[in-house]
Amino acid sequence: MNNAIVRLNPSQLLLLVFLFFIILGTIFLKLPFATTTQVTWTDALFTATSSMTVTGLAVVDTGTVYTLFGQLVILALIQIGGLGIMSFAVLIFMLLGKRIGFRERLLVQQSLNHTSIGGIIKLVKSLFIYSFTIELIAMCFLAITWVPEFGWGRGMYLSFFHSISAFNNAGLSLFPDNLMGYVGDPIINIVISSLFIIGGIGFTVLADIWYKRKFKKLSLHSKLMIVGTVVINAFAMLVIFVMEFHNPHTLGAMSEMSDKLWAAYFQATSPRTAGFNTIDIGNMHEATITFMLLLMFVGAGSGSTGGGIKLTTFLVIVLSVISFLKQKQQITIANRAIKETIIFRSLAISMISFLFIFLAVFILNITEPEPFLKLLFETVSAFGTVGLSMGITADLSNIGKIIIVFIMFLGKIGPLTFAFSLAKPRQEKIRYPSEDIMTG
Amino acid sequence: MNNAIVRLNPSQLLLLVFLFFIILGTIFLKLPFATTTQVTWTDALFTATSSMTVTGLAVVDTGTVYTLFGQLVILALIQIGGLGIMSFAVLIFMLLGKRIGFRERLLVQQSLNHTSIGGIIKLVKSLFIYSFTIELIAMCFLAITWVPEFGWGRGMYLSFFHSISAFNNAGLSLFPDNLMGYVGDPIINIVISSLFIIGGIGFTVLADIWYKRKFKKLSLHSKLMIVGTVVINAFAMLVIFVMEFHNPHTLGAMSEMSDKLWAAYFQATSPRTAGFNTIDIGNMHEATITFMLLLMFVGAGSGSTGGGIKLTTFLVIVLSVISFLKQKQQITIANRAIKETIIFRSLAISMISFLFIFLAVFILNITEPEPFLKLLFETVSAFGTVGLSMGITADLSNIGKIIIVFIMFLGKIGPLTFAFSLAKPRQEKIRYPSEDIMTG
Ligand SMILES: [K+]
Ligand SMILES: [K+]
Repeated sequence: MNNAIVRLNPSQLLLLVFLFFIILGTIFLKLPFATTTQVTWTDALFTATSSMTVTGLAVVDTGTVYTLFGQLVILALIQIGGLGIMSFAVLIFMLLGKRIGFRERLLVQQSLNHTSIGGIIKLVKSLFIYSFTIELIAMCFLAITWVPEFGWGRGMYLSFFHSISAFNNAGLSLFPDNLMGYVGDPIINIVISSLFIIGGIGFTVLADIWYKRKFKKLSLHSKLMIVGTVVINAFAMLVIFVMEFHNPHTLGAMSEMSDKLWAAYFQATSPRTAGFNTIDIGNMHEATITFMLLLMFVGAGSGSTGGGIKLTTFLVIVLSVISFLKQKQQITIANRAIKETIIFRSLAISMISFLFIFLAVFILNITEPEPFLKLLFETVSAFGTVGLSMGITADLSNIGKIIIVFIMFLGKIGPLTFAFSLAKPRQEKIRYPSEDIMTG
Repeated sequence: MNNAIVRLNPSQLLLLVFLFFIILGTIFLKLPFATTTQVTWTDALFTATSSMTVTGLAVVDTGTVYTLFGQLVILALIQIGGLGIMSFAVLIFMLLGKRIGFRERLLVQQSLNHTSIGGIIKLVKSLFIYSFTIELIAMCFLAITWVPEFGWGRGMYLSFFHSISAFNNAGLSLFPDNLMGYVGDPIINIVISSLFIIGGIGFTVLADIWYKRKFKKLSLHSKLMIVGTVVINAFAMLVIFVMEFHNPHTLGAMSEMSDKLWAAYFQATSPRTAGFNTIDIGNMHEATITFMLLLMFVGAGSGSTGGGIKLTTFLVIVLSVISFLKQKQQITIANRAIKETIIFRSLAISMISFLFIFLAVFILNITEPEPFLKLLFETVSAFGTVGLSMGITADLSNIGKIIIVFIMFLGKIGPLTFAFSLAKPRQEKIRYPSEDIMTG
């Protein structure tokens, strides 16, 4: 038995750990004192999966249907899911001797021998300390708004819950309208978005910044992530601001320019995996929704709490396509060539993601009466573990819920599993001759 | 001037030839005696582009709005577009010394020295003869149905028009409801579908069959195309039959089982570029529509009159993803390895296609009031030069029409241009060191 666990590769282990906690969470959430009203097994499974995969889609209102116990179970799942993914990302790359993507001095190498169990424990410990510290600091900031508004007990609890939910990119809120009540609140906007951006950029990038200090010395991966995050967020903010400016259901309803700007900023940064919302997603323009589909699909950073195909994957694809059109032989960023295996992996990840999304949307269109776009949005949101919805989550049929559960699970487990799979290619004895095929 | 034309590469030449005929066609279709009622310049441009790119989307009813002269202009554009693409596909691969994808005895090598102008002319001549012969034979078969129904003059003309439209995968019909009036007619079903399947499988495959006779001796490309076409058509027929069986607007309305089977067969084979319809697309289930999006995106064969990313591109992607998941080092089909450049090209073609479709859908969602799915369907239909519509083509705004014109043009020109681009990589002097990036 013990041997069987040892023989599993890290991806398989991750999958089993996730399954275990989802099942455990489902049972806990089904306990009579976890909820104020009876929830079905499907709804408990959905909530457990949504929490463990830090997606944040909700079939019932978290704040009223779940008791304090239920909410703490949800928080625990979020924290285990978020940290679990981050630890495993680090662990997998260490086991592969890849040194987390950059070759110079780094936390990992300084403090430990990478393949020893002791080293892994040390690293995970520092990851935990770093996460809890950030969550604690953020909680104090959030309390500035919520303690005066709700009193010490409730205010601190709200700050505690939302800090964990935001840092782990879960996007779950105790307010029935998520964060729409704080659309123009600078503290909530800044703290929550900082949390999910830090949580979403990936631990390795933060470690890199911490040890190197200067931008020029950073690894290619860190540079890409930082520049990419700033550019995509700024661009998304501009698009959403322009598209929604006159929409009477969203920005158009706000009289203050500062509210409009905060709302555009928040809704631009949130879809790449966080999943909080300060404006009503269901009432946005279909063109804005289309744009958000792209943001949700792209997602956050590798080895972060976020989902999606990952920002670096997207950037590699964009750069590959540009190089391809320019007929370049090498794909380069900042005077560094990108290896063919990475390009191929990025393209394969995207195609596999498209395939799963397509299949899920196809089945949902059979089982659900909702319009195509709402179902597509829900699926992409689940796959990117984003958690935004056009308001149909609670109305899904049981089959629909199970499909979304499956997609959330795949979305969280998938890309990492594939990355690991590719890193250990099976040796084949037969080399076949190659032959041309006309394509395109 | 002459020198400038010679210095163009084949892709650029193809682009200019297409632009030239589209502009010429627009002017012809705008002539007073080309139409029975006034059409706008945008509508004339749309019709000319739709014909030249053999897409078949129609903003006005071809049968009543265009006079005989107008219809002949449309037919001429279809024939030029269809043959032009086929000739250029052959030509480009010849110029590259690629011998159209298989290395053994073949039409090309037997009859000519591939890079000489004389050889090209000979090859194109045989292509023309083959096309016209097939069209003539099909016309006679169609006349069996239409001459008794409409008399000699009109019957022969209908047969002539639909034979050219079908072989070139244009999908334009002189009937206002396309071929819905012949949903259960065996002759129309068999002749029209044979025409667009033969036209869509690609000239090189047919030449290969003609010279080799035995399946085992065929090139990998031909084997893939034949098996792929049969499998995808059978699968699509099954899906459509099952999905639409009880739909009262489509198969559910038919009392005869034979009608249901013919309708499922026809609507399964048509979306991969032909674009004819015998049932009402706008009334199909959204799940079936979702499935048809995939068929339209995949399209027909390379170097055929069809569009889409091409069946081989799709198969290469599917096989790559399977090999990737199985951790294989080589991607193989029928004991032949597929070159990395082909895999990469297939993935790049798909990503570029996704990008264009995404941008077009995004803009259309701004300019058009129609629901998302109808706009997505229209765009994918245009990109795959399919021509099926959920009934919104005529209602598009002028901006919407221009975008669809642009997408039809790109859909027809694109993949080939990219194939050519990749075949002539620019040599770079600087080789950059490579560095890892975490993806997925
Ligand atoms: K989330
Ligand atoms: K067509």
